[in-house]
Amino acid sequence: MTRKFQIERYSNGQSSLTTDQLSVEEPLLVVVNGKPFATLMRTPGEDVALTEGFLFSEGIIAQPSDLAGIETRQHETSQEIHVELAAHCHPSETAPRSIYLSSSCGVCGRSSIDELTSRLDPILPLAVDPEFLLSLQTSFAQGQQQFPVTGGVHAAALFDITGDLLSIEEDVGRHNALDKLVGKAFRRGQLPLKNKILLMSSRASFDIVQKTAMAGIPVLATMGAASSLAAELANASGIQLFCFLRNSSVVNLR
Amino acid sequence: MTRKFQIERYSNGQSSLTTDQLSVEEPLLVVVNGKPFATLMRTPGEDVALTEGFLFSEGIIAQPSDLAGIETRQHETSQEIHVELAAHCHPSETAPRSIYLSSSCGVCGRSSIDELTSRLDPILPLAVDPEFLLSLQTSFAQGQQQFPVTGGVHAAALFDITGDLLSIEEDVGRHNALDKLVGKAFRRGQLPLKNKILLMSSRASFDIVQKTAMAGIPVLATMGAASSLAAELANASGIQLFCFLRNSSVVNLR
Repeated sequence: MTRKFQIERYSNGQSSLTTDQLSVEEPLLVVVNGKPFATLMRTPGEDVALTEGFLFSEGIIAQPSDLAGIETRQHETSQEIHVELAAHCHPSETAPRSIYLSSSCGVCGRSSIDELTSRLDPILPLAVDPEFLLSLQTSFAQGQQQFPVTGGVHAAALFDITGDLLSIEEDVGRHNALDKLVGKAFRRGQLPLKNKILLMSSRASFDIVQKTAMAGIPVLATMGAASSLAAELANASGIQLFCFLRNSSVVNLR
Repeated sequence: MTRKFQIERYSNGQSSLTTDQLSVEEPLLVVVNGKPFATLMRTPGEDVALTEGFLFSEGIIAQPSDLAGIETRQHETSQEIHVELAAHCHPSETAPRSIYLSSSCGVCGRSSIDELTSRLDPILPLAVDPEFLLSLQTSFAQGQQQFPVTGGVHAAALFDITGDLLSIEEDVGRHNALDKLVGKAFRRGQLPLKNKILLMSSRASFDIVQKTAMAGIPVLATMGAASSLAAELANASGIQLFCFLRNSSVVNLR
């Protein structure tokens, strides 16, 4: 998940030649029923979870039985993952959208807030207090494996209401980290993730809130800022949104 | 470009109800020759520059004469920008890709590094020393209008070799900020941006280096980390890539 590069580090007037670890970013072509569906720029390593989480967030699959098969294929110049949908999933509903997704791209824009919330089951609210969220930061930091090495990946972590870290995923793309986390819960039959808290190292953009809503997670807290559309979607879908979670402070968007 | 929200700020055990400005994120549907081409999740305000820079980076247009018309249309529930290509641009080359782009998404994955570099004109190298790059930080910070208010936007800034700030753009999406900057240079006939230095507040992902290469900019410096693919593309296309530009230090990827 990291790759060594030669670098010149310049600091306080001193220059030194050394090596450094960079987070790996590589394209993964997602093929659904034989047709190219999307290219994800991701950190390799959890491609099945990533793909299942992505397709779930996209509304293409809802439970494991919607999948007839999923396998990764390594070609000379490309990495592909081939998904066969179960017969009861109509391919017409999954017409290829030829989506090109970067390492920091979700699939928003397709659904307006109204359209999205109309498809969602109601999310049961979960009361959390700010001090509880602040207390999660230690295990969130300790759970990150790649970030301390590269400084170049985002993390998505799931906590329960006792503050236990349930799962954590990292990726060069924030939405990929979240797709991997949701994909693993999908495979385990744990969706919707009621009474859980999602922590993200990133900002809260529309796509992150969209994926949080699809997974039924009632609380989202991000280290970075929230966008206007993220706040509006959180409000409309019943997600409690916190941002700027840092050290001893956090902002709750009402 | 910012919108007021009610928030509860919690800090060091104290809670206060107040308002805060969030960066606006809204979808813009790009329609090319009457067909939906892409949805950009962007901060409104420079939609023509954004669209022209995006289409240039995508290789759809190369100079202003490739455009027969471009106009924004405000519908009840959506914002659209309609682009008519000049007759000499064959629509078949711009078959709709139905791209869905988030606020932090570029369009990578389509082009391998080899494919991309084969289309690029050679980039003339530009010698810059680390201390010069560090000196740009003050005007970079001073040039940002929205970030001090929201903490939720990225900035792309262009400097000349004397250290003068030539242009700066902000957006919730890092790639949008860069597309706006390139779009304005496109409109002014300034491309390729030889002998210029690009500073980005973000990380360096593949899509950012791709856009830098398309614009012919020889030096890219980012405040965040670089991904492996970003470093590889920079190397292959002749871009000098610096990352972790912060205070008195910077890393040069060789």
